[in-house]
Amino acid sequence: MGPHPAVAAIRLAVRRALHDILNDHPRDPAPAAVAPHERPPAPLVLVACSGGADSMALASALAFEAPRLGVKAGAVTVDHGLQPGSDLRAEEVALRLRGLGLDPVESTAVTVGRAGGPEAAARDARYAALDAALERHGAAAVLLGHTRDDQAETVLLGLARGSGTRSLSGMAAVSGAGGRYRRPFLEVDRQTARKACMVQSLPVWDDPHNADPAYTRSRLRHEGLPALEKALGKGVVEALARTAQLSRDDADALDAWARRAETSVRDAAGLLECAKLYALPPAVRRRILRRAAIEAGAPAGSLFARHIEEVDRLITGWRGQGAINLPGKVVAQRQGGRLVIRQG
Amino acid sequence: MGPHPAVAAIRLAVRRALHDILNDHPRDPAPAAVAPHERPPAPLVLVACSGGADSMALASALAFEAPRLGVKAGAVTVDHGLQPGSDLRAEEVALRLRGLGLDPVESTAVTVGRAGGPEAAARDARYAALDAALERHGAAAVLLGHTRDDQAETVLLGLARGSGTRSLSGMAAVSGAGGRYRRPFLEVDRQTARKACMVQSLPVWDDPHNADPAYTRSRLRHEGLPALEKALGKGVVEALARTAQLSRDDADALDAWARRAETSVRDAAGLLECAKLYALPPAVRRRILRRAAIEAGAPAGSLFARHIEEVDRLITGWRGQGAINLPGKVVAQRQGGRLVIRQG
Repeated sequence: MGPHPAVAAIRLAVRRALHDILNDHPRDPAPAAVAPHERPPAPLVLVACSGGADSMALASALAFEAPRLGVKAGAVTVDHGLQPGSDLRAEEVALRLRGLGLDPVESTAVTVGRAGGPEAAARDARYAALDAALERHGAAAVLLGHTRDDQAETVLLGLARGSGTRSLSGMAAVSGAGGRYRRPFLEVDRQTARKACMVQSLPVWDDPHNADPAYTRSRLRHEGLPALEKALGKGVVEALARTAQLSRDDADALDAWARRAETSVRDAAGLLECAKLYALPPAVRRRILRRAAIEAGAPAGSLFARHIEEVDRLITGWRGQGAINLPGKVVAQRQGGRLVIRQG
Repeated sequence: MGPHPAVAAIRLAVRRALHDILNDHPRDPAPAAVAPHERPPAPLVLVACSGGADSMALASALAFEAPRLGVKAGAVTVDHGLQPGSDLRAEEVALRLRGLGLDPVESTAVTVGRAGGPEAAARDARYAALDAALERHGAAAVLLGHTRDDQAETVLLGLARGSGTRSLSGMAAVSGAGGRYRRPFLEVDRQTARKACMVQSLPVWDDPHNADPAYTRSRLRHEGLPALEKALGKGVVEALARTAQLSRDDADALDAWARRAETSVRDAAGLLECAKLYALPPAVRRRILRRAAIEAGAPAGSLFARHIEEVDRLITGWRGQGAINLPGKVVAQRQGGRLVIRQG
């Protein structure tokens, strides 16, 4: 008898991710003439585990699949220090991870700042800790337990920003420098991960933050998405996840087009020529304008669609309007058929 | 004292739409030598009015602005015959429209079929009636009362299909053959339209269908969107409307790229070359595949992202797989480095 379908599903997802990692980090061929101790070591893959159902399921699947594929598997659990007793909790999670056969397993404490709000600050601290662990152990990648449900929530959060296709593209299956972050569960739903823990008798910890209505993501998870499912039908989460993938491909293609077109719309002095910009499709032109504003020093996070629209009107609705102020003290103005964007 | 801000807002929106129509339908210059009765007649613009707040506000703004811009203004109200007494209701709406000074005003009865579900069938019947009225009166355009809230709902309905950027692009401000349909209120919210009716003492009729939870759009309006606003904040409707515009521009640019690229990936016999398709960005390649499937006879409405993904794997994940069945009895298969898509 094979494993429970939920366990089979999480293992398949991890197996695919490990195959990808092995393809991206090929080991040198080890001819028989090379003594075993001289062969390159097996690559190490870490799993980031909070002790919650998603990442615990991921850890269990990694522990199962890694030895079968000749991969070393370890784990990191991050103590965010946001609740009393979180250090003990992290130690307990580390113990469970060792119990799965993962090695090395480390619990690492971080200090969460305040920049960008509580969710962003915790995320920044967590990724910094994961990067440090990755370097320390010379790991090839770290697996993250984001599920299809997390992806759907991320798409809705992007939708609320109203800044277009890129912001709808959710989380990438592979991201970070050298493809260090991998998300094997982006097509696995949260329920499957939880079920897999249950049938494997893995105790899981439900972070009270996930149910705290002070957090946007939590409100979305417990109220927004269920209401949307009630109105639109059960397929919403899947549709949102598919939207993420399609939007990512579309945004990539349009970014590539904009990069290519940019060189052809600059004059000998490197200034943007309004007539040539005018001839481009709006989607491409606005991407070039956005890139130019960021290059001039506008912070990407503060540059909204309405800013770019206003700059765009210097080209498409020219009636002698004055300079446009952008975030980061960047100024855009039209001068003699050229668009000048620079820090003022 | 100027008009109430809500009235000013709806009039501005209509003024802009009328300016666009006048630009798109220029009148011949009428030199003094031409007698008045020989000058080309003023263009006629119709408003489609259900008697609800949105379209009644639109009708009132058209009645106010049209004479100031030298445009003739009339109205059509469609009796869908779905409720007892709907014919009397339509006559009453027609009376109110005449009271606003619109001329011609007609009430036209349609028979709603069943194809595509009740909402789609009613929409099809309505647009057919509007087309007929437009032809009959030689009108330049018909104005439709869709608001920013309707646009937000349309984006969410597209999101639920999970079929990408085009399905997120909502309704166009200008659509139909010759730009016959115009939606001046896509940036006006529903509350403003209702307020404008109130302060102008215009009686409005609330279609009970709009509150009937049997309709997806109604559930979205009364439950889905409010829950999403509660989770994500009040700006959601605006963000969704902006997403529509950005998605439309992105989809247009990518469609143009795909049309251009298509000619370069066909061999002398007109067959798609897999190696050349492989070199394209996925977003462009999948659009070419989708177009090819539709050209071969697959009905666009039944062709989903997962179908195109499967065809795409003939190019990106070739391992000798067999023919792929698509809707409309269309078959896609790889033969000697070529992709053959045809009705089987």
